[in-house]
Amino acid sequence: MPAKKGLPKKNAFYAQSGGVTAVINASAAGVIETALRNSRRIGRVYAGRDGIIGALTEDLIDAGRESRATIKGLRHTPGGAFGSARFKLKSLEKNRAEYERLIEVFRAHDIGYFFYNGGNDSMDTALKVSQVGESLGYPLTCIGIPKTVDNDLPHTDCCPGFGSVAKYVAVSTREAALDVASMARTSTKVFVLEVMGRHAGWIAAAGGLAGRRAGDPPHIILFPEIPFEQERFLAKVRQCVSDYGYCVIVVSEGTATADGRFLADAGTKDAFGHTQLGGVGPLVANMVRDALGYKFHWAVADYLQRAARHIASKVDVQQAYAVGKAAVELALAGHNAVMPTIVRRSSRPYRWMIGSVPLAEVANLEKKVPREFITEDGFGITGPCRRYLEPLIAGEDYPPYRNGLPEYVQIRGVPVKRRLATPFEV
Amino acid sequence: MPAKKGLPKKNAFYAQSGGVTAVINASAAGVIETALRNSRRIGRVYAGRDGIIGALTEDLIDAGRESRATIKGLRHTPGGAFGSARFKLKSLEKNRAEYERLIEVFRAHDIGYFFYNGGNDSMDTALKVSQVGESLGYPLTCIGIPKTVDNDLPHTDCCPGFGSVAKYVAVSTREAALDVASMARTSTKVFVLEVMGRHAGWIAAAGGLAGRRAGDPPHIILFPEIPFEQERFLAKVRQCVSDYGYCVIVVSEGTATADGRFLADAGTKDAFGHTQLGGVGPLVANMVRDALGYKFHWAVADYLQRAARHIASKVDVQQAYAVGKAAVELALAGHNAVMPTIVRRSSRPYRWMIGSVPLAEVANLEKKVPREFITEDGFGITGPCRRYLEPLIAGEDYPPYRNGLPEYVQIRGVPVKRRLATPFEV
Repeated sequence: MPAKKGLPKKNAFYAQSGGVTAVINASAAGVIETALRNSRRIGRVYAGRDGIIGALTEDLIDAGRESRATIKGLRHTPGGAFGSARFKLKSLEKNRAEYERLIEVFRAHDIGYFFYNGGNDSMDTALKVSQVGESLGYPLTCIGIPKTVDNDLPHTDCCPGFGSVAKYVAVSTREAALDVASMARTSTKVFVLEVMGRHAGWIAAAGGLAGRRAGDPPHIILFPEIPFEQERFLAKVRQCVSDYGYCVIVVSEGTATADGRFLADAGTKDAFGHTQLGGVGPLVANMVRDALGYKFHWAVADYLQRAARHIASKVDVQQAYAVGKAAVELALAGHNAVMPTIVRRSSRPYRWMIGSVPLAEVANLEKKVPREFITEDGFGITGPCRRYLEPLIAGEDYPPYRNGLPEYVQIRGVPVKRRLATPFEV
Repeated sequence: MPAKKGLPKKNAFYAQSGGVTAVINASAAGVIETALRNSRRIGRVYAGRDGIIGALTEDLIDAGRESRATIKGLRHTPGGAFGSARFKLKSLEKNRAEYERLIEVFRAHDIGYFFYNGGNDSMDTALKVSQVGESLGYPLTCIGIPKTVDNDLPHTDCCPGFGSVAKYVAVSTREAALDVASMARTSTKVFVLEVMGRHAGWIAAAGGLAGRRAGDPPHIILFPEIPFEQERFLAKVRQCVSDYGYCVIVVSEGTATADGRFLADAGTKDAFGHTQLGGVGPLVANMVRDALGYKFHWAVADYLQRAARHIASKVDVQQAYAVGKAAVELALAGHNAVMPTIVRRSSRPYRWMIGSVPLAEVANLEKKVPREFITEDGFGITGPCRRYLEPLIAGEDYPPYRNGLPEYVQIRGVPVKRRLATPFEV
């Protein structure tokens, strides 16, 4: 088939990067289905096995050889179906060889489109790859696709992946709080749920959606944005137990003291001299026990929260698919070094559209929870925060079930025949 | 209204006991709806505020004054809507006064039916209350209603509450394992999920349902029934990482060494001399890190697992309602000091019916996971175990949602006017 308007037909390469989410595969489905539909312009659709490592080692997967049912099933499958990697390319100055190797592999496989699905770091990488391609005389269309449960990318109203973890945390907080409230008279009085968010408190903030009225749990949210003060915290816990009979706390793993030290890195050691086990959840619970003597329980959701496709937000799934699709459309429309964004047009009713932003404006920046989204005492979320968050957890998008369990798909992962003689060690 | 066959019309009392579940309120709905439908035989339907404490302190809730919508909504609401209590009545010899007080309150409110919704301890209490009533010339119909996430009651094929936590653990394990598998090449290689089950490993066993084929995660389950041997465990972890690239572990909080000591109670102290924070999940993860050096993550589901009504098992919800309904029907049929049970008629297809057993045969007994349900190496579940467990997590029974969150009901909790002059301290 001749390419439209005489543009050369090129292959596409898609890679997942960094921590995976409940909906990153929905973005993959958006990329692959849209690319396959544009077969006059895009030839084969490849994916990196284990992300960018697959490109460096020339370990490519032929996504076009997956069944249509599998690709469709990616929309409801959590984790990174093609494999993701915590692998940050070094700076151009320090390791130009890695960038040049990428271009070498892309050239060998006639790849003209690079779709990189990740967070801040990955947007930076995509930008640099685009620049190196240019300088090596191998022009490449590089599009970033936003993905992070942390919701900390700038210039997009929200990040695909966040809405689902937010829904998980809000639902779980509401449920656990009902449990605690039932039994507080004779049993647990303080419950602590530790959630992700090393630098930004968006996920912790989502716990606040569990409550509807003043006094509803969670009674305390600990944000990375608010320096932790032990005395104020303990006084608030005591007050809650006195007022409500119990206290539910959502704590971000990134909660830190005023000097910037994570609570979880307080440096305490156990009897064997090991750094203290456990995160900030058990630490805070222990603090409450020691100071106030209340019976406590704590939970650490860890990967459960970001893998919980069974309770994904429908809006999040739609947006994750939409940014994948938009990435291909932006590429075909001649854009380069950009990232599709979510643009909010209104909150009530919630309306959104796809926009785009140059990668250079996104790379390595972080968006924290603004102060006006946090109540004056630092322990809760405000009305504007609620208005921002609520639409992002709206709607359910249940996966299909078989024998009581979600039917998640697995790719065949057919490898693309290698064309380069030189291996590459990562 | 004259009572049927001249039997005196009596009021009913319902109380929730011990740790709550995702479906104990479905049993409450079964009791209340069935009792209200039998208004020729049963007068008012009362519930204890905070369980048996409500009876002792004469703090009764008039369940008949809840709206029909609220009672119906109990079927999809987790936690204990009337309040539950960790409060075990002392032995008859040690504190006959408590039992006599119960009878006094029941007599004052013309209560002829006592429905007690709990685990082993509660069945024992219900039995004793029945005996004391008899000896005080106040005959009382006492029916136990099984409830426990631990699934450790004898003489019933399973316990309402278990199927839903089993489903939660199986789904969460499958999801988190996909996350870990995606990233194992450059990130976390060992993931540990700690689940409930202090003395019986049923919940941990349910994690095994996440895998379908040999080699599927979870690769290791640690049961309370199998003495923990560190060297064998570490060798298995190393083997899994070598074979599959990663290792997913489900560990029961009750995992213990051959001398019967819980791993979690190993007595290690932190720098302040406190007993080590955290449960067996972080402990096992740390053990792996120290011995093998793998990057690890761990999660502790804690109350999230037993409150997770959003992913309840449909079979569990149906059975929880059915035992509540059956309790009232047994009482009206003239039975006393019995507990309705779940009788399995076949596994594939799954068919069950309601039976009953004398409380005396249930009280204070525990049903553990039989050895033939655990693989020879002690780290997995066998085919027979899978056939037993699978039907219990079958079907989804989603609660209604509003603004992205489950709409759980709250009772009004209208108090019944006190009739006794004497207060009672618990």
